[in-house]
This record gives sequence, C-alpha cells and structure tokens, in this order.
Amino acid sequence: MRAPIAVFDSGVGGLTVVGALRRELPAEAIVYLGDTARVPYGGKSQKTIERYSEEIASMMVSEGAKMVVVACNTASALALAHLRDVLPVPVEGVIDPGVRAAIAATKSGHVAVIGTKATVGSGAYERGLRAACPDIRVTSIACPLLVPLIEEGMFEDEVTDAVLRRYLSPLRETDADTIVLGCTHYPLVAEAIGKALGYELALVDSAANCASAVARRLASEGLLAGDGEGSLDLGFTDPPDRFLGVAGRALGLATAPAAIRAVPPLGS
Amino acid sequence: MRAPIAVFDSGVGGLTVVGALRRELPAEAIVYLGDTARVPYGGKSQKTIERYSEEIASMMVSEGAKMVVVACNTASALALAHLRDVLPVPVEGVIDPGVRAAIAATKSGHVAVIGTKATVGSGAYERGLRAACPDIRVTSIACPLLVPLIEEGMFEDEVTDAVLRRYLSPLRETDADTIVLGCTHYPLVAEAIGKALGYELALVDSAANCASAVARRLASEGLLAGDGEGSLDLGFTDPPDRFLGVAGRALGLATAPAAIRAVPPLGS
Repeated sequence: MRAPIAVFDSGVGGLTVVGALRRELPAEAIVYLGDTARVPYGGKSQKTIERYSEEIASMMVSEGAKMVVVACNTASALALAHLRDVLPVPVEGVIDPGVRAAIAATKSGHVAVIGTKATVGSGAYERGLRAACPDIRVTSIACPLLVPLIEEGMFEDEVTDAVLRRYLSPLRETDADTIVLGCTHYPLVAEAIGKALGYELALVDSAANCASAVARRLASEGLLAGDGEGSLDLGFTDPPDRFLGVAGRALGLATAPAAIRAVPPLGS
Repeated sequence: MRAPIAVFDSGVGGLTVVGALRRELPAEAIVYLGDTARVPYGGKSQKTIERYSEEIASMMVSEGAKMVVVACNTASALALAHLRDVLPVPVEGVIDPGVRAAIAATKSGHVAVIGTKATVGSGAYERGLRAACPDIRVTSIACPLLVPLIEEGMFEDEVTDAVLRRYLSPLRETDADTIVLGCTHYPLVAEAIGKALGYELALVDSAANCASAVARRLASEGLLAGDGEGSLDLGFTDPPDRFLGVAGRALGLATAPAAIRAVPPLGS
C-alpha cells in the first residue's frame, strides 16, 4: 500500500484542498480527517488549536502518512510552526502558497485578505506577504459569518450577499487588486464575492495553490507515488451533516462513506 | 464553603441561565463552565454530546457540586437522561421547565419551538410537550444562523432581522400563540424576534423557567443554601471572545475574570 498524504481540517472545508490535490496528484493515496467534533477552530486560542492539530497529525503520522497537509487556514496560521517542530514528516499549510500566489497576482501592490477571526487576528497572511515583499500594502477583513452561511449551503442567497457587501465595503475605496480567500470554505462563494465587490479583483484560492506546493515538496523529497491509481479515504470525528454532500457535489468529489474516528489526547 | 450549583453550557449562552439563577437564588454559590474549546454543540452527534457533557459534569461533581444544571438546550435534549443515569446529584436541564411554561401559556393549543439543528432534530421539546398535553400541536423550526449572529453582537441588525423573518415565516399562517426560545442565546434577540413576527406571541424563555425549577428542586431536596451572600465563578475551556462582554452587559452580570480550565477525558 502506498504511503498516504494526510490532510486535516477542523471540518469539511478542507475538502476544497482535497479536490485540488486529487486533480494535481491523481496517483496519490489521500487520507482526510475532519475534526467535526470540535469544529470550528476559528475563534479558539492558539494553544487549543496547537493541541488539536498535534493530536490529529501525530495520529495520522503514526498510521504511516508520508506528509501532513494542514487544510485549514486557522490551523495553518496558528499551529504550522508547532507541527513542523514536532512531526518527523514534511508539513505544508495553506498560507504560504496563498501568499506567493497573491504576490505574483498583484500589480497595484495592495492585497486584501479575508478569513475567520482567528486567521485574520493571527496576522499570518500579513506577515507572510510583508516577508515576501516588504512594501506591500495589506487590508485584512475578518468575516466570521461566512462559514456558518456556507455550511447552510447559502452560496446564492440575498442574506449572504448582504453580509458580503458589508464585509467587503472597506475595499471599495482602496486600490487593492487581489483578494486572498483565506479560508478553505470561501471558494464555494467565490461567485458571490465577485458579485458583492461589483468590480474585478484577482481571487487567490489557497486550496489550489496549496496543492501545487504539496506536489513540489513531494517531488523534491523523492516522495511522489509512482503510476497507478490513487485513493481517497475520509474520516471525521463526528458525523458530518448535510454540508458534506453539498461540498462534495460543489467540488465534484466522489466521496466514499466516511469513517467516524476518535482522536486520542496527547500523551495517551 | 457552601457547596455550589454547577452550571455548564457549550459556550457563553448559558450565562442567561446564570443570570436567572442569580436573581432567583442570590444566596447560592454558582460555578459555571463554558466548553468554548468545543463550542458549538448544536449540529454534533448525540454520542459526542453525551461524552462532552459527562466529562464536564463529572469533573464538577468531583469538585463538590450539589446539583448540576445543563444550561444548554442541545445538551439538555441529547444528554440529560445519560447524565441522570451516571451522576450522583440532581440534574436539571432547560427543556422540561420550558415545556411546562409553554403548556401554561398557550390558549390555542399550538406551540412554536425554535432552536439549533440538534435541539430541533432531537424532537425533545415536541416529545415533552406531547407527553404533557397529548393533543397539543407543535411547529418546530431550526435556526442555525442565529447563534453565530448573536455571538457577533448583531442583536439589532437588518441581517438578523432578514434571517429571522425567513425562519419565522412558516408561523404566520398558523394559530401558534406561544413560541419557546429553545436556545439559551435567543433571549438576547427576543426583541428582534417580536419585530420579525410582527404580531404578539407569548415568548417562553427557558432560562428563567429553568432557574425556577432549580429552586424548587433544591428546596425539595433540602439543599438550599442558608442566608448570606452567594457567589459566581466563571470558567471556560478556551478564552471566551468578546461575546462574554456583550452577554455580561446584556444580562447585567458582574463578571469576575474567568478561569481557563482543561476538561479531562473520561476514565483518566
């Protein structure tokens, strides 16, 4: 059996990363774990998110994963450095790839970032963008209601439109020409975001950029699977509700029945 | 030191119950634990909610609590029977008291219940109402976006109004004359609910009715504190965000600095 790539998220949003990985690396075995028993991570503290992330990633590595992908912006923002310290395999998140794509896309030098409170509050995108390009200008906007709206399947809905217009209105008076979707759920409302803005911005989808970074990392480490057919196994810490079907359809993922798994606490 | 009443909730919403208990039982010591590291419970499975509830309640009983109050509709709906099986002290929830108040309030015999997906999906209010009054008619409506909106402090907001109008519109064509606020957060938008309905309904606030039930139970068990001044200790499993301040002010609770605590897994 080929060693899998472990992908985890606080819930089902990370399936956007799985969709991108399946397209980019069809020969890989992918094991996904969504921590639906403790979702959402956005809003919780760094210490708690580090603990949850380590519990899950350690379990997946002990089960043979050759690489860990943190398919959650909140955990990437708050726990990636910690995971890189404690895990013996390569770890990739969704932030650095999004940062690189935004730098490549912007012409005005002004980038907008939207995400959960925890992601925006962490300043991780801002730090990454400034490290890559010291004179870049960044406008970060926390959008705490977007995940609940998306999980309700309200992709095309006047309430979602009204909430987006409010969140995005500060951008209208700026010359930001690029917007980073700093949450794995957000690609599902990319169209509504465009409509709420009312003008063109380059949308940076962290999921797609993360998948490319994973491919490059596996290649450079000599860890790519050979030919043959890959696979996808889904697990959750609590039965995912109907959003799994919504996301699966929206992403064109053929999803097998999902396993329900417990995550042991650290040190047990 | 007087033995405390232990009150727990998935987050900060249960503070509405604490507010009611402080008014009704000013001499009691109250210890509150909000499981903000795993919030929300609504949407998660019965098994997971039973486990979380037992972990918290067992810890509070082992620390001397004379009674446990489940200040969370989801946990009351899904875990109360289990807690009564495993705990050596009286346990009260928010559902039965709300049921009794609704039965007393309705004249048309048609009661509406609003709550999280998990509470409504559990059918707990419906079962309780029918057990108390077999020919009662019940219309239950899940309102999954209300908690996120309330936690954003959007008590008076056109987005909240629009969401409420949509959730409550099925009631307009009925003769329901009583509405049970089946979530401890909802008293904070009682006014917006009235506005969205556009006509009078009796609002049943589970928090106030729960506090009265706790007082009766303590009296019947001979467990009431004597005279003197009560106290309130707040704990959370993750630092509560600004909603704690919003709720504290809205409820007139003078809140001491909150402790951050870990909840040990069962059997440890």
